Amino acid sequence: MNYSHQRLLHFTEQVFIKCGMNEQDAKQAADVLIAADLRGIDSHGVARLSGYVRLYEANRANTNAQHKIIYETPSTATIDADQGLGLVVAPKAMDIAIEKAKNVGTGWVAIQNSNHFGIAAYHAMKALPNNMIGIAMTNASPLVAPTYSKQRMLGTNPICYAFPAGKHLPIVIDMATSAAANGKLEIAQRTGKPIPNNWVQTKDGEESTNANELSNGGSLLPLGGHKGYGLASLVDVLCGVLSGANYGPWVPPFVAFLNPLENLPGNGIGHFLGAMRIDAFRPADDFKNHIDNWIDAFKNANRINKNQHVIIPGEPEFLLEKERLETGIPLNDKVKADLQELANKLALEF
Amino acid sequence: MNYSHQRLLHFTEQVFIKCGMNEQDAKQAADVLIAADLRGIDSHGVARLSGYVRLYEANRANTNAQHKIIYETPSTATIDADQGLGLVVAPKAMDIAIEKAKNVGTGWVAIQNSNHFGIAAYHAMKALPNNMIGIAMTNASPLVAPTYSKQRMLGTNPICYAFPAGKHLPIVIDMATSAAANGKLEIAQRTGKPIPNNWVQTKDGEESTNANELSNGGSLLPLGGHKGYGLASLVDVLCGVLSGANYGPWVPPFVAFLNPLENLPGNGIGHFLGAMRIDAFRPADDFKNHIDNWIDAFKNANRINKNQHVIIPGEPEFLLEKERLETGIPLNDKVKADLQELANKLALEF
Repeated sequence: MNYSHQRLLHFTEQVFIKCGMNEQDAKQAADVLIAADLRGIDSHGVARLSGYVRLYEANRANTNAQHKIIYETPSTATIDADQGLGLVVAPKAMDIAIEKAKNVGTGWVAIQNSNHFGIAAYHAMKALPNNMIGIAMTNASPLVAPTYSKQRMLGTNPICYAFPAGKHLPIVIDMATSAAANGKLEIAQRTGKPIPNNWVQTKDGEESTNANELSNGGSLLPLGGHKGYGLASLVDVLCGVLSGANYGPWVPPFVAFLNPLENLPGNGIGHFLGAMRIDAFRPADDFKNHIDNWIDAFKNANRINKNQHVIIPGEPEFLLEKERLETGIPLNDKVKADLQELANKLALEF
Repeated sequence: MNYSHQRLLHFTEQVFIKCGMNEQDAKQAADVLIAADLRGIDSHGVARLSGYVRLYEANRANTNAQHKIIYETPSTATIDADQGLGLVVAPKAMDIAIEKAKNVGTGWVAIQNSNHFGIAAYHAMKALPNNMIGIAMTNASPLVAPTYSKQRMLGTNPICYAFPAGKHLPIVIDMATSAAANGKLEIAQRTGKPIPNNWVQTKDGEESTNANELSNGGSLLPLGGHKGYGLASLVDVLCGVLSGANYGPWVPPFVAFLNPLENLPGNGIGHFLGAMRIDAFRPADDFKNHIDNWIDAFKNANRINKNQHVIIPGEPEFLLEKERLETGIPLNDKVKADLQELANKLALEF
């Protein structure tokens, strides 16, 4: 049995209200989470709801946060998120970036003192209806070892770029800078199947095909070796160092049962968001026509297997969203039990 | 025998002057090329000089180019490079980005109608002495196949981010979005050794460990599979589609013996450059102190092999540059013969 997105939205919103959020913020946070489920990024949707609640219960997330701008220029701002959820502050920050782009061509917002913000694509895609390119990045709790190290020093630190198209669906590139996204690893953990040998390493830094290596003290590996380490580093510097948030090994864990390290160099976790007005570079219609042409060229590129065309980044997620808006969202038993437990604890109906 | 960088600079400058460049532009172009040799990116230095000359001889590069701004906002510009060399226009465009960042916090310049710009790091690093973060990307002639395709649709499309540090060397991340950089492939071609099976594929899209597969009609593979395809695509869209340059399979080849395709959708090749003032986000000294702390943390991360510490992106290149400024630049026999031939043809002394 699938769950309608409306039902999951309503439940998630009620949970956040029980945690002390006002209705508007709760609606926003729920919208970001359910967008992940709709787009098939199940690891970042309602599956994480109880994790956010535990952060709130452990006094690690402020559900009544009042964000404020602490530095600002015509094209930039730095925001102190007041220990709120990234789910709430990131869309507000994206609105600021869009407003700045309207005024001076581009807008860039670094955010400190935040918590996890859900899927990067949600925030970057806010730029699209404004004929803008959207950019979103976040750092995250350390799980990835840099090349030559066996220590977890970087998060899966995603990079997202969203580009508007004309007649076609937008191009949305949203990718963790680790070799494997959490979601794929979780599927392998459930099925017990071996994973490719470049996804994780053991606690001693040796190759492994065991999806459970992380629980043995191992670490995730960066995408394609040292280049992924470079990509994760640039995300960490923009999100953590530039904003005044924590970075590297000091990024506070998402799971409430692990305490942050002592003597943190910054505040909370950090995000970096951007919006660029297309017509600050060329007429928006020209750009969108050429994006359509780009998409047509790539879809029609010579295939290796005649039954598999080239996939345009973001297309599978848009198609799945369309499907799940109609047929609902499947939840696995563990997630269902988790949500039922939340409902019981908070005296809500699931 | 090594060649002093002054000698190579002087020779390169003379070659560009013989091609019709004014002295200032020739000096600039030579400086970008020799910076590559000094930093150990030998594939992008004087080894390419005769390639630029052949582009000029084939009337594919304008050595007397007058670039002009064709769109502009306070934080952005689009430049028509007038078919000039990226080696010359990219530093000028970076100066514009830096000026805009001084005024409104950040500056972003898209460039169309250009030719190859050398190493991305040269341009991004121009931001560093201004207490700014520098960003540089370029698209390039198609060599890389998108996932599920056997067709060359994307260049090695590099991404570079340069971050200033305090007491330490800057962090400079400069990476092709293909699995293997050209330089590494060329070394394997010379030595005839097998390469990892994720660098190239055959013309039919099959795995290969043959470094010469490209000459058989094969293609380079994107970094880490479909994520590298996503990264190369975002570089292509920012550099090609946003600027009004060519993109995807239409990017004109660097080698003069291959003609551009017909009915091109844009002008020349494209670049995308950015500069962000650090103190548009937080005080520059705070940022630089935390970058130093980031570097110390990563250098001291637990090692897998006790003799190999974690490498900070850009550090090997800075150390090699220091060495080569003193001991000179080694050139292989093929490059030496190539430069001697250029000298003979242009009546110069090498």
